Amino acid sequence: MEEKTVVILGATGSIGMQTLEVIKKLDNFRVKGIAFGKNTTLAEKIIKDFKVEYFYSPVKYNVSSIKDMVEKIKPDIVVAAIPGFDGVLATIDSIPYTKRLALATKEALVCASPFVKKACKENNVELIPVDSEHSAIFQIFDESVVKILITASGGAIRDKENIDDLSVEDILNHPVWSMGKKITVDSSTMVNKAFEVIEAFELFELENIEVKIHPTGTVHGAVFLKDGTVKIHFGFPDMKIPISYSLSYPKRLYENKNWPNFERKNFIFEDVNPSKYPAFFYGKSIIKDLAKRIAFNAADEIAVEKFLNGQIKFSKIADIVINTCEKINGNINDFKEIFEIDKIARQIAKEQY
Amino acid sequence: MEEKTVVILGATGSIGMQTLEVIKKLDNFRVKGIAFGKNTTLAEKIIKDFKVEYFYSPVKYNVSSIKDMVEKIKPDIVVAAIPGFDGVLATIDSIPYTKRLALATKEALVCASPFVKKACKENNVELIPVDSEHSAIFQIFDESVVKILITASGGAIRDKENIDDLSVEDILNHPVWSMGKKITVDSSTMVNKAFEVIEAFELFELENIEVKIHPTGTVHGAVFLKDGTVKIHFGFPDMKIPISYSLSYPKRLYENKNWPNFERKNFIFEDVNPSKYPAFFYGKSIIKDLAKRIAFNAADEIAVEKFLNGQIKFSKIADIVINTCEKINGNINDFKEIFEIDKIARQIAKEQY
Repeated sequence: MEEKTVVILGATGSIGMQTLEVIKKLDNFRVKGIAFGKNTTLAEKIIKDFKVEYFYSPVKYNVSSIKDMVEKIKPDIVVAAIPGFDGVLATIDSIPYTKRLALATKEALVCASPFVKKACKENNVELIPVDSEHSAIFQIFDESVVKILITASGGAIRDKENIDDLSVEDILNHPVWSMGKKITVDSSTMVNKAFEVIEAFELFELENIEVKIHPTGTVHGAVFLKDGTVKIHFGFPDMKIPISYSLSYPKRLYENKNWPNFERKNFIFEDVNPSKYPAFFYGKSIIKDLAKRIAFNAADEIAVEKFLNGQIKFSKIADIVINTCEKINGNINDFKEIFEIDKIARQIAKEQY
Repeated sequence: MEEKTVVILGATGSIGMQTLEVIKKLDNFRVKGIAFGKNTTLAEKIIKDFKVEYFYSPVKYNVSSIKDMVEKIKPDIVVAAIPGFDGVLATIDSIPYTKRLALATKEALVCASPFVKKACKENNVELIPVDSEHSAIFQIFDESVVKILITASGGAIRDKENIDDLSVEDILNHPVWSMGKKITVDSSTMVNKAFEVIEAFELFELENIEVKIHPTGTVHGAVFLKDGTVKIHFGFPDMKIPISYSLSYPKRLYENKNWPNFERKNFIFEDVNPSKYPAFFYGKSIIKDLAKRIAFNAADEIAVEKFLNGQIKFSKIADIVINTCEKINGNINDFKEIFEIDKIARQIAKEQY
């Protein structure tokens, strides 16, 4: 196989670091550029270990921007894994200069799907999902799919009764996945799962998306076909598997012959409880409203920050998110409007306690 | 879609009748020829209802043989569903004159796989499995498969303790699938599952095949990929689904939006008990020995007939099958030798009680 060049946006984050681990084990993938945030110590180590030629962060760089870097490299693959709204622009800026977009930044589809999809189409760029659920659906997709199922761990609050007063520490203790703080909170509110439903809706262009709580995280998704067939994607919850697939697709090059058992506990599914996860149900109800989706994301970023800073109780996150979205209406006609809506929504969310 | 012509071998049997039901619901498939056994009344009804042009049975025909019929029609698809060893020759005779072989006759692969596969290759014929487990694996197969799992109902004896004296009536009361008598007995001895392991070994050219007892029959199979991914094929046990897929592949044309729930009972898997299913384990041990596979099939046909006639106890079936196989050794170099081994094995099996 020919060498594939890779740019990782968000290299020092959880997905970025796991991408580097995967690339270490695969032949023929070469990291030519990275973008990162504030963790310069870690970034320097990566640059040295992987002999990275180009790098960009607001504090340390040898190119003028992420766009400049990707344009210089013209990589085979961009792994877009900058978390949050910050990742949207970086993702869109990269599309014209790559052959494949391995997309982990959910916000790119949640807040800007028409622009991301249009850019991919115009530039003939493959859009491959990195998220475990979407990678699962992508792997088992078929033209006859009439319904999609994705699973949710239910986060740290799944088996708890009084969720109102859960501490930051309680919430960050995620039962299945080891991830960044923001996404771990989003997992407990299931705002993350609402993002994923929106992402699935955009990636697979299908509205019929079911979510089930599934404690072990071993079933990632399923597709229901028109002839009565269901294909289920099963495996240990390990992000290195979908990351490697997004790099090596359509082949599987990653060696990991370690599969969960066909035990009962690995096949437990429950309905999502609306009173426990109100933000999830709200998010699912706005999948076709791009302006509200932008507000949903913006308000959640603000609310989670407040929660992590000890300014609000856990249950307040959903209130702030829903109240903010209710105040946002309108269509998005121009790319710039995404940033305007985001700004307004953040302002509204900031004022709420 | 262009009209596809179909020949059904074994039209009055369980698979044949379900194929006709499927074709009734699909557009663009036309039954041009059928072969059947003794059920002339039913065959006449089929011939009338489906305006079948050519038909063959030993007792009623308008062509001189199955081969003659298939050669005249040159169909797009032959559905090979004549049960037992009788189906082997009919299957092989059809291959040169069709574009696709939808194969339900397990014995064609169990007893004659090198010849079937060679004929398909030489004549550029697609070999599509009809059996639910093999159709499942075929649908989720991938070049990275390192292990296959197929499920077994365990038949009527699954939850019984004293299997020695089970009556014919007990055994024919299959918990999941409604099928012919012979295959229902084979399901209780799991000789049928041994056939299926052999079939899977031949179809997918992989030795690593696991079998689990799975009461609801909702998981038909799974593939374990080298990167840690498992794909599972799930759905109600309904032969019309794999039959329709074998006709319409790679498309799915059959409408049946009816999927089982993700309930616990639909995901129960247990190991196969060796003392309960000795013939299964024996059959699994001879997957690479074609002569013994022929003997395994021949002896089982004799033993099941004896059991159905009340001549032997249920547990004697496995004894006769294993004892017969133990007496057969040798390589098969020529197609004719299949029939010789079959004849010798039947003789040996007939002498045992």
